[in-house]
Amino acid sequence: MEFAISRRGRLAQPQPISYLMAQGVSGDCISLAAGLVDAGSLPTEGVAGCMSSFFAGRGRAGLQYGTTEGLVSLREKVRKRLSHADGLDVDSIPLERVMLSTGSQQMLYILTEIMVDPGDIVITAAPTYFVYLGTLETAGAQVLSVPIDEQGLRVEELAKLLGRIEHEGRAAKVKIIYTADYFQNPSGMSLSLDRRQELAALLGSFESMRPLIIEDAAYRELRFESDDTRSLWSIDGGRRVAYLGTFSKPFSPGLRTGFSVLPEGLIDPVRVVKGNHDFGSAGFNQHVIDCFIDEGLYDVHVEKLRALYAEKCGLMCKSLTQHLEGRAEWVRPKGGLYVWVRIPGLDTGMDSPLFKRCVANGVLYVPGIFAYSDRPSAPKDMMRLSFGPVSSEEIVEGVGRLAMSIEQVSSGCSGGFRP
Amino acid sequence: MEFAISRRGRLAQPQPISYLMAQGVSGDCISLAAGLVDAGSLPTEGVAGCMSSFFAGRGRAGLQYGTTEGLVSLREKVRKRLSHADGLDVDSIPLERVMLSTGSQQMLYILTEIMVDPGDIVITAAPTYFVYLGTLETAGAQVLSVPIDEQGLRVEELAKLLGRIEHEGRAAKVKIIYTADYFQNPSGMSLSLDRRQELAALLGSFESMRPLIIEDAAYRELRFESDDTRSLWSIDGGRRVAYLGTFSKPFSPGLRTGFSVLPEGLIDPVRVVKGNHDFGSAGFNQHVIDCFIDEGLYDVHVEKLRALYAEKCGLMCKSLTQHLEGRAEWVRPKGGLYVWVRIPGLDTGMDSPLFKRCVANGVLYVPGIFAYSDRPSAPKDMMRLSFGPVSSEEIVEGVGRLAMSIEQVSSGCSGGFRP
Repeated sequence: MEFAISRRGRLAQPQPISYLMAQGVSGDCISLAAGLVDAGSLPTEGVAGCMSSFFAGRGRAGLQYGTTEGLVSLREKVRKRLSHADGLDVDSIPLERVMLSTGSQQMLYILTEIMVDPGDIVITAAPTYFVYLGTLETAGAQVLSVPIDEQGLRVEELAKLLGRIEHEGRAAKVKIIYTADYFQNPSGMSLSLDRRQELAALLGSFESMRPLIIEDAAYRELRFESDDTRSLWSIDGGRRVAYLGTFSKPFSPGLRTGFSVLPEGLIDPVRVVKGNHDFGSAGFNQHVIDCFIDEGLYDVHVEKLRALYAEKCGLMCKSLTQHLEGRAEWVRPKGGLYVWVRIPGLDTGMDSPLFKRCVANGVLYVPGIFAYSDRPSAPKDMMRLSFGPVSSEEIVEGVGRLAMSIEQVSSGCSGGFRP
Repeated sequence: MEFAISRRGRLAQPQPISYLMAQGVSGDCISLAAGLVDAGSLPTEGVAGCMSSFFAGRGRAGLQYGTTEGLVSLREKVRKRLSHADGLDVDSIPLERVMLSTGSQQMLYILTEIMVDPGDIVITAAPTYFVYLGTLETAGAQVLSVPIDEQGLRVEELAKLLGRIEHEGRAAKVKIIYTADYFQNPSGMSLSLDRRQELAALLGSFESMRPLIIEDAAYRELRFESDDTRSLWSIDGGRRVAYLGTFSKPFSPGLRTGFSVLPEGLIDPVRVVKGNHDFGSAGFNQHVIDCFIDEGLYDVHVEKLRALYAEKCGLMCKSLTQHLEGRAEWVRPKGGLYVWVRIPGLDTGMDSPLFKRCVANGVLYVPGIFAYSDRPSAPKDMMRLSFGPVSSEEIVEGVGRLAMSIEQVSSGCSGGFRP
């Protein structure tokens, strides 16, 4: 039967990117597109060990209903760890502000649902995390964007944009400013400390606006160098900023557990809406993570991951240099899972000759265009390469196939290549 | 900071029932209110055993990202089990129609989000599952209701209501008819086979309406007697009906895994919206349940639960007879977790003398009023008692305290009682 779908239902359109993601899971193609984590590093032994002690101890609690907010002992750990990372006193984060969710994605969704009516304005970076663009589409948001550079979001451009919106009398429409400020997906860039301070000051200066700032720190722990940067959330004092983190990237995506620290005014609405969504994410998983941290395995694991991804990132950049120096441009990221590459003058879109050639040659990338809300004016020659789930051999081979495809398309040759 | 909350965010209001649920978790009070499952029966040993073989085998897959739809092997089991239960050929349920979610609650939320615009009509039973009333509030739905009797939803009353709506020219507004038709929460009543057939026929006869029928079968497996009833979904041929089940009640709520079989026209919208919500519920948990079924533990466990809950239900009814025969009315349910009790002439609301007396005496129930969308016209003298999480001793003691409270309030005595 054909149903009369709601406005939200109609706004939700399949993203072409889903096709790419599905490809990564199977096939003899090397996917440099899939945003998965390194499979070999998943801590199966550590988790197996935890499960034994878990079931010998509090196993029963993990199988019963939990609460909408999530397991208290894990939320306590979140506030301790975050206050430590940001150099704050632990009491500066009241426990009630900390909530767990089904990945940080669910909290992104709920915050957007709570803030955005159709026609409201949400500001993101350009490029930005493309899954969130789908969420914004469902919400009927008008998405405006601000470019980034090697220091992250260009705050002076944001200031101009906000000024323009204010001038147009639409200040009250600005509901969310979304910034992924640690090794951003897809660009790999972080927001510098100076820019964070400028951003916090800027937001304080616009009295006509009360946007929620969402700081997506999903990749914060996956830094390759030892020095961390204070969160925007801590600079703001947690008034306007919701801080979103996750255990997916640094631990296990299959446990689907994200965490957040919310501004005071959003605690109640989030609790009610999340209660309606699912009255709490899986408590079992929260216990597993809590055990893993208790047994001292978590930090050791994250250290291991940092070294691993730093090595894979280095290898990908080395392969790019070897095959594409002078033909492509990229900035070596200092963390995260992605290298953002420009092939000047060559269209990278899903209907482009390059994309088709890559598919024929057995390599996939994410066309950069998906990371822009304003597609007509977006650069057409960007691509995101992931080094997360692929092996060293696949990185070398995949970049080789990519270079070959670029070469073939640039020279107008259409010959196939399948090693 | 005070944020400018969206319409959906403003519609989402804290439910007073949350207070009651929180009470059940701690304190020296006997909660006959909490809708939890029996803690002692949670299959910790079985799951612990599964986890060992899980991590020896496919543990790694469980820690990586899964898909939005959920684990294929578990979805295969869902369609096999459901087709078996309904006497259908397994191929009558295409795999793509089966989706997993974070409890069945999440699917209830998503289906409502996809179908309902503010002002649209949703029809439920009266009484109905009260958590869903909160979800409908967030969606801005106009909730209309149809009374039930011992055979479940009164289909002739639904026919009258639909006729009236059609006559008023509002047929297109009817988006969802929600029916929990197995040992309904809160009444414990099921929809008889005759009524199911009448309902299916009725829906086919209204050409001006295309509502989605949500069949919430959360308690189907918790039947005390051997004979099962065909699902409304199977009678309808899965055209208009979404079938919602869960592994929470018959297995483990902490794993937060529900399942559903969707009508064809809703597969794509649900996949996209769920992708935006969380791009898939926790795969880890889906693997745990899949293993548990593979090892033959699931059916044995459900059999054990049936016997356990039948015994607890029997004990609760016996205690009610012993203390309240002639003063209260109830129908002994044939499955589920609840007894729905009427105390004729006595207000059971949260502000009533009875409720306060019960709190003072150390026993909690759910005031029946919460299970009605139209509160002004709802009966004031109903209550829901749960026998799920409480022990036999607590059932006996709790019903004793309840009877004592009723006695005290009825006789105007305000003396305390705390054994």
